[in-house]
Amino acid sequence: MNALDLIAAKRDGLPLSGEAVSFLVRAFTRGDLPDYQMSAFLMAVCLRGMDEAETASLTRAMLESGVRLSWDAPGEAGLRVGDKHSTGGVGDKTSFLVGPLAAACGVAVPMIAGRGLGHTGGTVDKLEAVPGLCAELPLARLTAQVREIGLAISGQTPEIAPADGRIYALRDVTCTVESIPLIAASIMSKKLAEGLQALVMDVKCGRGAFMREEERARELARTIARIGAAHGVAVTALVTAMDQPLGVAAGNAVEIEEACALLRGERPEGCEDVRALSLELAGHLVFGAGAALSVQEARAMAARALQSGRAFEIFCRMAAAQGGDAALLRRPGLLPQARERLLLRAPRAGFVTRCDALGLGKACVRLGAGRSVLGERVDPAAGILLLAKEGDRVAAGEPLAELRASSPERLDAALSLAAEAYGVGEEMPVLGRLVRGVLSSLPGGGVSTRS
Amino acid sequence: MNALDLIAAKRDGLPLSGEAVSFLVRAFTRGDLPDYQMSAFLMAVCLRGMDEAETASLTRAMLESGVRLSWDAPGEAGLRVGDKHSTGGVGDKTSFLVGPLAAACGVAVPMIAGRGLGHTGGTVDKLEAVPGLCAELPLARLTAQVREIGLAISGQTPEIAPADGRIYALRDVTCTVESIPLIAASIMSKKLAEGLQALVMDVKCGRGAFMREEERARELARTIARIGAAHGVAVTALVTAMDQPLGVAAGNAVEIEEACALLRGERPEGCEDVRALSLELAGHLVFGAGAALSVQEARAMAARALQSGRAFEIFCRMAAAQGGDAALLRRPGLLPQARERLLLRAPRAGFVTRCDALGLGKACVRLGAGRSVLGERVDPAAGILLLAKEGDRVAAGEPLAELRASSPERLDAALSLAAEAYGVGEEMPVLGRLVRGVLSSLPGGGVSTRS
Repeated sequence: MNALDLIAAKRDGLPLSGEAVSFLVRAFTRGDLPDYQMSAFLMAVCLRGMDEAETASLTRAMLESGVRLSWDAPGEAGLRVGDKHSTGGVGDKTSFLVGPLAAACGVAVPMIAGRGLGHTGGTVDKLEAVPGLCAELPLARLTAQVREIGLAISGQTPEIAPADGRIYALRDVTCTVESIPLIAASIMSKKLAEGLQALVMDVKCGRGAFMREEERARELARTIARIGAAHGVAVTALVTAMDQPLGVAAGNAVEIEEACALLRGERPEGCEDVRALSLELAGHLVFGAGAALSVQEARAMAARALQSGRAFEIFCRMAAAQGGDAALLRRPGLLPQARERLLLRAPRAGFVTRCDALGLGKACVRLGAGRSVLGERVDPAAGILLLAKEGDRVAAGEPLAELRASSPERLDAALSLAAEAYGVGEEMPVLGRLVRGVLSSLPGGGVSTRS
Repeated sequence: MNALDLIAAKRDGLPLSGEAVSFLVRAFTRGDLPDYQMSAFLMAVCLRGMDEAETASLTRAMLESGVRLSWDAPGEAGLRVGDKHSTGGVGDKTSFLVGPLAAACGVAVPMIAGRGLGHTGGTVDKLEAVPGLCAELPLARLTAQVREIGLAISGQTPEIAPADGRIYALRDVTCTVESIPLIAASIMSKKLAEGLQALVMDVKCGRGAFMREEERARELARTIARIGAAHGVAVTALVTAMDQPLGVAAGNAVEIEEACALLRGERPEGCEDVRALSLELAGHLVFGAGAALSVQEARAMAARALQSGRAFEIFCRMAAAQGGDAALLRRPGLLPQARERLLLRAPRAGFVTRCDALGLGKACVRLGAGRSVLGERVDPAAGILLLAKEGDRVAAGEPLAELRASSPERLDAALSLAAEAYGVGEEMPVLGRLVRGVLSSLPGGGVSTRS
């Protein structure tokens, strides 16, 4: 097989065989295919696309470049393993609810998550806001913890889909990130490596999402569900709105605080979206993993696990097992607090017509809660608390949000972005639905779509 | 300006400004833009194309990476400078006629030509079949010779469009050669560097051409003519058939022999196409450079220069000035002769229905007349003489072609390819026209098309 022939075939829009895709991935990972040829291939994929079979082959090739967790040890027959993944949003702390909820319902969750880059936060960064907590577990420790507690949340390890890591690094510097087959294969190669039976995906669309258009988000959801079907994993993908942040906290410790409040059974104002979406995601995951007979039943099981505090106990046990001080999770105000605070006030009376996730996400980066360059440190205490969200009525001068950072300079740097993210108008805005669609892989292949 | 933004814009099909194109070319030539980013950009150009302005900008940026010959020295006012270029064919020795013909008609020709690669021969390789002749002239010697004799033919020099050299090397290994804007800009950056007033292009189409489809050849011709117009150079592009080789000789010394016979005013059988096309190309070049009032007049001038032997004298002076033994050009049989010869015979009686330039070009490479890898030495004496061409009637066993090489092994290696290149059938084939279209750049920009 000749790499140039395969690049030319993709350039000309011809589909590649599974062997061809695997040949390219292996050659690149071994270092036999130079970067400049891989980047030409990736650009051709961006513009010519990949069909279902090619995308499944690419996923498989990247998956097979590393290890795949196995849950078939003696005595583990019947262990249900699942995970939740999101394409990234602002204020999205649902992982901290869905993981414990699923574990409480009998689905073990080995969640390998990412760090934040750009305007969206990262699960690993948020978790590390808990003093002492280590979110970089070796694989053996991660699997042991999942077996014991039912839940571990940890960063990417080099054993998982190393080909994806190399390809992603190249995509990042060659404008070849925004391709649905490449995005889907990248996500799924890592998720399939967890040895899952079920996956629930939260594919965001809207202003603050990686995919702004709902139609493209649906296409990504469909592609991911199909890859799942091709690999025997029950995938349900929810397409959800990310126009304004989820809940009221955006940052690191502030999001953990919000998640813990919800896990403790509280119903803080402005957080209903987080709670509802978490239950919805958990329901699909628990049902997908076979721990309930219907999504309705699974949703009810998750709601009971939330109400009873069993999910919170699992979250606390996980935090403690990973070295964190779980006592800090039991009451608000104990996690790192920012010294400097600034209220953003409404310039006029009216309705909040816009509370833009993209602008607020960028403001969070300026406050120090996120990073604009790989490897940058994040400030666990920095972030934004939303005091008003879309549809809320505000008086002139009433606080819209509180910015938190370690220095007044950081507050100043973020203020204009945060102010521009808010719109206040005379008319009550029409609020869209949070969940825009649900796509599920079918056991025999294919995808079913609801709404 | 940011390279990633520009790559993304091209990926998304947006046109780039002249500054943007120039920024990318300069950054790449300086070594600031890595190969993997340039190759992603080139693939995006392959699939998204470039409009007229972008293609002109790319040409200009590559041109400006090197020197541009100037013919404005004192006393040179009124010096007419032009050139002829071909996209490459088999048996195409028209440069050896068009150059001297134009020079004899008052148009100086600083012809910077290439070496052969793959199934098409190279002008420089053919010229070097003349013992002693040096076809790698330093620029200063090339210009002095053009001033003195009116003609020099020499290989590429590193001062001419170095950016094109670097970009071409990358295109060659990333499947991004076959893009009309990239091909046109590559050709024109080198040709414009010669400081021309006029250029005649021979854009080949058909089985033995780089562009098989006539429509794509026309598009390339149009693009080249437009670049000429944008740079104030009168370009006429002929789209010509390259289904069977031109004339009867394909190789190096054998082609020089054929060209010399025609330059001496002889009319060898089977060479009428070479003679007619050379006069046609020379006519367009002489008219384009302003040395005649019409193409008809220019064609007649060229025919007289051929008949009178003035063109041949210029060719001999050029050969001598470049160190060649011009006496060897005045009679056939004096240039290097191959020791081994083999006749390919007609398998049956009938009409020659196919005399495939691609197959015969590949056979030439096997005989040693061409190269399949850059830098390989070529055998000046090897080649093929066509004894029958399309439309000719042959008896069973009658010779179709004579293969020439330095060893019987070479003959054996080429025989089957040559045999497959010929088709003999019962019906007289319908022969297409040699010149399929003529496209000329108009002084104010734009392109006029005839037939």
